[in-house]
Amino acid sequence: MSAIIIHEVGLRDGLQMEKQVVPTDQKRKWIEAIAGARVDIIQVGSFVHPEKVPQMADTDALFTELAAHLHGKVVLSGLVLNEKGLERGMRCGVEMFCMGVSASETHSRKNTGMSIDEATGRIIAMGRQAQTAGKRVQVSVQSAFGCGFEGPVPQERVVGIVKKYLDAGLTNISLADTAGHANPEQVEKLYEAIFKLGGTIEAACHFHNTYGLGLANVFSAMRVGVRNYESSIAGLGGCPFTKIAAGNVCTEDLVHSLQRMCLRQDIDLARLIGVAKEFAGFFNRELPGLVYKSGPIPAEGKLPS
Amino acid sequence: MSAIIIHEVGLRDGLQMEKQVVPTDQKRKWIEAIAGARVDIIQVGSFVHPEKVPQMADTDALFTELAAHLHGKVVLSGLVLNEKGLERGMRCGVEMFCMGVSASETHSRKNTGMSIDEATGRIIAMGRQAQTAGKRVQVSVQSAFGCGFEGPVPQERVVGIVKKYLDAGLTNISLADTAGHANPEQVEKLYEAIFKLGGTIEAACHFHNTYGLGLANVFSAMRVGVRNYESSIAGLGGCPFTKIAAGNVCTEDLVHSLQRMCLRQDIDLARLIGVAKEFAGFFNRELPGLVYKSGPIPAEGKLPS
Repeated sequence: MSAIIIHEVGLRDGLQMEKQVVPTDQKRKWIEAIAGARVDIIQVGSFVHPEKVPQMADTDALFTELAAHLHGKVVLSGLVLNEKGLERGMRCGVEMFCMGVSASETHSRKNTGMSIDEATGRIIAMGRQAQTAGKRVQVSVQSAFGCGFEGPVPQERVVGIVKKYLDAGLTNISLADTAGHANPEQVEKLYEAIFKLGGTIEAACHFHNTYGLGLANVFSAMRVGVRNYESSIAGLGGCPFTKIAAGNVCTEDLVHSLQRMCLRQDIDLARLIGVAKEFAGFFNRELPGLVYKSGPIPAEGKLPS
Repeated sequence: MSAIIIHEVGLRDGLQMEKQVVPTDQKRKWIEAIAGARVDIIQVGSFVHPEKVPQMADTDALFTELAAHLHGKVVLSGLVLNEKGLERGMRCGVEMFCMGVSASETHSRKNTGMSIDEATGRIIAMGRQAQTAGKRVQVSVQSAFGCGFEGPVPQERVVGIVKKYLDAGLTNISLADTAGHANPEQVEKLYEAIFKLGGTIEAACHFHNTYGLGLANVFSAMRVGVRNYESSIAGLGGCPFTKIAAGNVCTEDLVHSLQRMCLRQDIDLARLIGVAKEFAGFFNRELPGLVYKSGPIPAEGKLPS
């Protein structure tokens, strides 16, 4: 893996917002195309109850089908919400488990029925279990930059959760801006506070473009040393707290930007753009991504060295 | 004026791309509303030949009507392309003249029939004339971050033009990313190179969101000390080199971000959002701005101190 790591989450965080269920075979083709474009990690789905999110009902089947086939070519990650999900993931060959807690009490109780402290204890136990079983584990703090229910989330609270993760030996840590509230200044300050905790930490970020700051926040995180970026093809995945279409940071827009800065030239941007067009075609509407509509800046438009 | 200055250019750079001509009275109402929201500078229009851009045919009339009325409340700027435009602007009470050259030979010749050097000499003469007449003058470098025709634009060329401006006593200087090619790293480097020229310089920037980096570039410029931002209500104003709708950096999205960082709390965001909605209503389509659709982050969502 190179210095900047792209974790595609559109198949999970993008699709889970969509009512139109994507056939398993279509998901498989998209995952193979994204893997072929040399994205580092692909989140295949979440292990949530199939009746709760029908869009995610085929997560186990997808892993069973893809895990061996794509092994060594791309890391396939799965989101687990509870012990049952973890068990399912263990059975079907998940290589990397993603799991997390919310830094907002209201959000935590609504999602899990637990306080932040209770949820953190549970996630740490699950994370260690997966790690002991030889799996990669990424633990996250949702609503790390503000909450759609509560509004402000104190930085100290997020840092406190991260410290608990680190103390438990869980060092791959993602901060998620669930409601899209983050701003570039805040992003820098929060990651700086976390890096000050010391020790080995592989910091990741997950931004939404709800209010237009998705990529601005990415470049702010990059400045302070964050190297893991979660993004979604075509920018799919709205924020549950607003009615607008602006979703996750858009993968191909991000890769296009990186390549303008001579980073990750190994990623096949054209192929990602192709998948974005297929997303737009499948859902039959214009999606938030820009580069799949404009096309990349032409070759002669490359920055002079 | 405060530390961060907002220069609204939607009435010029936004509208000039629109075929549907806005009645003068409607423009006047929008300008008054934007002034009422306490934006610092409003670009009323350009002094281009009325047959060439019918949308700008009422620029003189608007200035004549508004200049005295809004004097002291907001600075009204006008774009001039040549000596004739400057004469027209002088006659109708323009307070701030904007004028510029392109850093791309192809772009320069297409726009003016002149080489960059010839065009620079002409603009400097015009700028000094306006300054001598007691006017504010902002000189710009278009295609400063890349050109839709030529692609890369060497940083030294942009710095060279800026140096000529400074040597001529023209110190309010805007760099325009005409084609939307800029990236955050490049933005920082170019402004740093310009600040190294020394002397008093009031640097401005004009970014387009063509490839999704508009606000990322704004915050990159802010980091190195740029304080003047040109933006457009609702993000109106596409790039002539692409067919997509992503236009100028969106004024109300920018102000929303600034206010999340406790900057420019004096600006009436709700009023700007109101104008953005009127823009969208007038043109009867969804415009690129996000906050006019999502609404701002609610009051309880304000960052903790």
